[in-house]
Amino acid sequence: MNKPLNAGDALQPKSKFRPLSVNQVEVGGFFGPRVDVIATTTAKLLFDRCIEARMLEQVDPDLPNPGVVIPFDHGNTVTTQMFWDSDFGKSIETAAYALNRKRDEELEARVDDVIDAYGRLQAEDGYLNSWYQRIQPGQRWTNLRDRHELYNAGHLIEGAVAYYHATGKRRFLDIMCRYADCIERTFGLDADKKRGYPGHPELELALVKLGRVTGEQRYLDLAKFFVDERGKKPNYFDQEAVARGDKPEDFHFSTLEYCQAHKPVREQREVVGHAVRAAYLYAGMADVATEFSDDSLNPALEALWSHLTDKNLYVTGGFGPSKDNEGLTFDYDLPNASAYAETCASVALVFWASRMLGREPDARFTDVMERALYNGALSGISQDGTHFFYDNPLESHGNHHRWRWHRCPCCPPNISRLIASIGTYFYGLAEDELALHLYCENTADIEVAGTKLGIRQETRYPEDGRIAVTLQPETPVEFTLALRVPGWARGFSLEINGEASKIAPDKGYLRIRRQWQAGDRIALDLKMEPEMLYANPKIAPDQGRMALLRGPFVYCVEETDNAAPLNAYVIKDGTPVTLDRAKGLDGAVALKVDATVESQPTDALYSGTPPQRAAASLKAIPYYLWDNRAPGEMLVWLRREA
Amino acid sequence: MNKPLNAGDALQPKSKFRPLSVNQVEVGGFFGPRVDVIATTTAKLLFDRCIEARMLEQVDPDLPNPGVVIPFDHGNTVTTQMFWDSDFGKSIETAAYALNRKRDEELEARVDDVIDAYGRLQAEDGYLNSWYQRIQPGQRWTNLRDRHELYNAGHLIEGAVAYYHATGKRRFLDIMCRYADCIERTFGLDADKKRGYPGHPELELALVKLGRVTGEQRYLDLAKFFVDERGKKPNYFDQEAVARGDKPEDFHFSTLEYCQAHKPVREQREVVGHAVRAAYLYAGMADVATEFSDDSLNPALEALWSHLTDKNLYVTGGFGPSKDNEGLTFDYDLPNASAYAETCASVALVFWASRMLGREPDARFTDVMERALYNGALSGISQDGTHFFYDNPLESHGNHHRWRWHRCPCCPPNISRLIASIGTYFYGLAEDELALHLYCENTADIEVAGTKLGIRQETRYPEDGRIAVTLQPETPVEFTLALRVPGWARGFSLEINGEASKIAPDKGYLRIRRQWQAGDRIALDLKMEPEMLYANPKIAPDQGRMALLRGPFVYCVEETDNAAPLNAYVIKDGTPVTLDRAKGLDGAVALKVDATVESQPTDALYSGTPPQRAAASLKAIPYYLWDNRAPGEMLVWLRREA
Repeated sequence: MNKPLNAGDALQPKSKFRPLSVNQVEVGGFFGPRVDVIATTTAKLLFDRCIEARMLEQVDPDLPNPGVVIPFDHGNTVTTQMFWDSDFGKSIETAAYALNRKRDEELEARVDDVIDAYGRLQAEDGYLNSWYQRIQPGQRWTNLRDRHELYNAGHLIEGAVAYYHATGKRRFLDIMCRYADCIERTFGLDADKKRGYPGHPELELALVKLGRVTGEQRYLDLAKFFVDERGKKPNYFDQEAVARGDKPEDFHFSTLEYCQAHKPVREQREVVGHAVRAAYLYAGMADVATEFSDDSLNPALEALWSHLTDKNLYVTGGFGPSKDNEGLTFDYDLPNASAYAETCASVALVFWASRMLGREPDARFTDVMERALYNGALSGISQDGTHFFYDNPLESHGNHHRWRWHRCPCCPPNISRLIASIGTYFYGLAEDELALHLYCENTADIEVAGTKLGIRQETRYPEDGRIAVTLQPETPVEFTLALRVPGWARGFSLEINGEASKIAPDKGYLRIRRQWQAGDRIALDLKMEPEMLYANPKIAPDQGRMALLRGPFVYCVEETDNAAPLNAYVIKDGTPVTLDRAKGLDGAVALKVDATVESQPTDALYSGTPPQRAAASLKAIPYYLWDNRAPGEMLVWLRREA
Repeated sequence: MNKPLNAGDALQPKSKFRPLSVNQVEVGGFFGPRVDVIATTTAKLLFDRCIEARMLEQVDPDLPNPGVVIPFDHGNTVTTQMFWDSDFGKSIETAAYALNRKRDEELEARVDDVIDAYGRLQAEDGYLNSWYQRIQPGQRWTNLRDRHELYNAGHLIEGAVAYYHATGKRRFLDIMCRYADCIERTFGLDADKKRGYPGHPELELALVKLGRVTGEQRYLDLAKFFVDERGKKPNYFDQEAVARGDKPEDFHFSTLEYCQAHKPVREQREVVGHAVRAAYLYAGMADVATEFSDDSLNPALEALWSHLTDKNLYVTGGFGPSKDNEGLTFDYDLPNASAYAETCASVALVFWASRMLGREPDARFTDVMERALYNGALSGISQDGTHFFYDNPLESHGNHHRWRWHRCPCCPPNISRLIASIGTYFYGLAEDELALHLYCENTADIEVAGTKLGIRQETRYPEDGRIAVTLQPETPVEFTLALRVPGWARGFSLEINGEASKIAPDKGYLRIRRQWQAGDRIALDLKMEPEMLYANPKIAPDQGRMALLRGPFVYCVEETDNAAPLNAYVIKDGTPVTLDRAKGLDGAVALKVDATVESQPTDALYSGTPPQRAAASLKAIPYYLWDNRAPGEMLVWLRREA
């Protein structure tokens, strides 16, 4: 096996920051056991459940055609089968990262079998889509808007790139390059090509990955084409609907805002529509902005970022409150108990935020990435890696639990591939700068300013704010080391080789330029204290409430630690919050705070008597760990009083 | 014209309490102008919109068949057309009450035309259903569960009874008797009859009305049959599904709890499923319990009542929080902004509660009836009688407004017929007892203990708690007069002919038995004060909040009277509440209360700084009047503090 080194990429970074590839980072600390759970349990389980759902039968041309095994969705034009290639793609990607973590011949053989089936399915011209080749032949490229055709291609490409990084095997990558070539022959500005683009964005960012790993500029060009064409007039999706004999206005979701094709992307200023589609698109836009140094995308990306983070983001880093469109509604609409906040949306936000770091280190993006990662994304999977949240409410009356599987199984492999590849989010590497975005025990091997460099983080982060970084360049080398100071830190201290440094953060990063020697050691101490957070008065359901946080973690209270009803407790602003250990959650840090608990003398539904009050205390655990113990109520936004 | 007198009924009341018929009560005071709006505006408008929706084309066999003009519902087995007969039935019923209020030859001619069309449509054997006769012929009685067939019959019957009471014309009543006879020949215990019952209950209570007005016991028997059969094993709906070639488990709503057919009605203890179906069923059960003195229904009715009012009722008298099943979810699930609380459900609760008074006056039922009537039901129609709420949230962020019409137009005629016939809910009449359930300026002509009696209420209720009742018996007559003391009253005083009476309430009613003379005058003074109501700690979204009430009215604050965001205001428990006048709402009584308003120094989405506080005041208006002025936020449950 011949694993590619250094971002796994043939195109080398210049002033752009790119992530490392998964095989460059050995993850320990907080994420180590989580990666292990994916590697030893979840990766196989995803394969089992995909096959149980009959996905392989749809892919493998040598197996009997299963036909439509899940009914067409009510009133919609899609079946879950239409996006099965994406679920398989994400499951292969997860398996690839699992194999990178821990060789497993059986799992690798299973993945190879599926890849082999895709190889046999692939059409002469490179086309590859199990739905259109096996279930609805003859209809390819007729409904980009609704039927996930290009979306599926993207996830298979991401799977292929990951499998190449993890195993060095090129077969799947070659298959997907042939398909990408087919797509390139089909879509483009030439008169004989279609000027369409993905109904569900995803292929854009996947093509950037493919371009980086293969060194083929044309894949980056194709990604840029899809970004550039999106939403132009006359609208491709409308024209395509007419060509099918459909009325554009009969679109199930009424408006093309649903798929962010309502206007050209450079004119977009507000996050609208389906949340995952949105964040995948913006991630692809950010990738294109980075790779092409295309500043014309910046006003849109900046405005979209502000619109999300200033008006539409849950404190957990989830977004998209509504089940109806799996997405956005109106500004400040952030209901808690009915929050949709799909796991995939938080995962997609991590993708988007990480790509906003392609131009320069800027903690505005990293802080949100970290919040989404540690809360709204991580909550999507159970501690044992076997059950999954699709929607992530911030309040539960005891009836919300992780699924074993979902009819639309997008979230399980999405959170799994994120965790299993988490090391790729730790760093951003430019030609002569290395940014440390996320802190976690790990070692990484990179090449910076032409010199091989080993880097090691020693830390109990995020349980503790102290991080020690040791550098081992092959030879002394000058480059900038950028260390993030998270927005939540109440202060910090920095030492370089034992000497205090007074350097000030630039956009939230301590950018240290010097000639680094082998054994150089940086000690960063981030002041991590529990904090009480208050919501903007325009967020109606959070008024009279506060959230407890510590470091990157948002906390919640659960019925198993606190007698229900949880909404009976009131915390006084400024009450001291102390640290504790959570029960049955591998010793995670819990928070304790004194409170008042209200009650009524009778069980009447409504009463003219104000509640009685008694002293009580609350114990809170990190939000991502909820619903791993006895089922019951859960609450993030706790009642407060002045 | 020969209007029937005295409950309009051939079967005379004995120990049972029955409502008066609409022509017996002349309504003034609070409801007078509201009845006038229905009579002069809404009744015609309903007809216009029914005909605009092409209902008459479906009914009239001499018009071209419109076919299916509204697509089949997504994933459901019904179209709105399937229940068009019910909408027409309720619109005829509304028109009948309007004609009773105010003769209108044009409207009467239009109703007669529709009745004539139904007459021409009616099959030889009496069957009458525009959907099955014109759109899906040959399928009658194949899907009682989903297709509203017997439900439609019920509403047409209610329309016919009302039209007879209002105009004395028998034609529609005769048509519907022939159809009821057809139903009676089709359904029953005999071996050659079907043992089915309405998928959407309604026919049960309609048959009781038909039995009462015609004196035909067999219609009451048929109502009882439908009540008795419901939910028995083997389940009729399941058998019927199998007979159609469907799998019972493919039922769109998964469980027969949706239509309250999951177990025999006498074994039911919890209000489940579709809210309107539920309350219509329970109303029918209560009617049967009254008419047959059937105490075996009481344990179910009492338990169902408690389950609703102790655990599942909004403070506005709405119920059924979920849009998904238009009904119940789990106990204490009473979200405010997303409350479904369909107008029809509150109307149906008025029906059910009024029928729980069939056995004896008991303010448990009347208090809830009054709460639902003045709040969750009345809110369903705009002041000018032209726009309608379908769902009635208790909080709005400014985006919820009354519809001109609804694709499923059940609510507009339902709230309209309730208002237009409101006089029938004022009184309960037994052989020698007259109960005054609701207070409102009115005069009524009845016969009690064999003697004709004129009764007059003089009052500004519900603006004021003072009521004067004058009796004018033809000759002195002994009977019991039962005067309700509402649960909200903070005390009361009673005078009979100027002399103070110390009689104590029995189940919330002052039951005065004596020989009444012409000119006897009762003065009841109910102490009506603003009050603050607090919710059970198990109702999560209402914690840290209070509702303002006065008399039967629940109050809300609106953005047009108070600067948004409304959730920034906090009221201290026990703050004095003063009376005011609402602007632009015909001088309705408003409430004013001092409050504190919270703000944040920046517009950040989340902040570590506790809110700043400033003095402010809030002005509240009766909930039913909201969204009649400038659109904006609305809030019922206001933030409070100890």
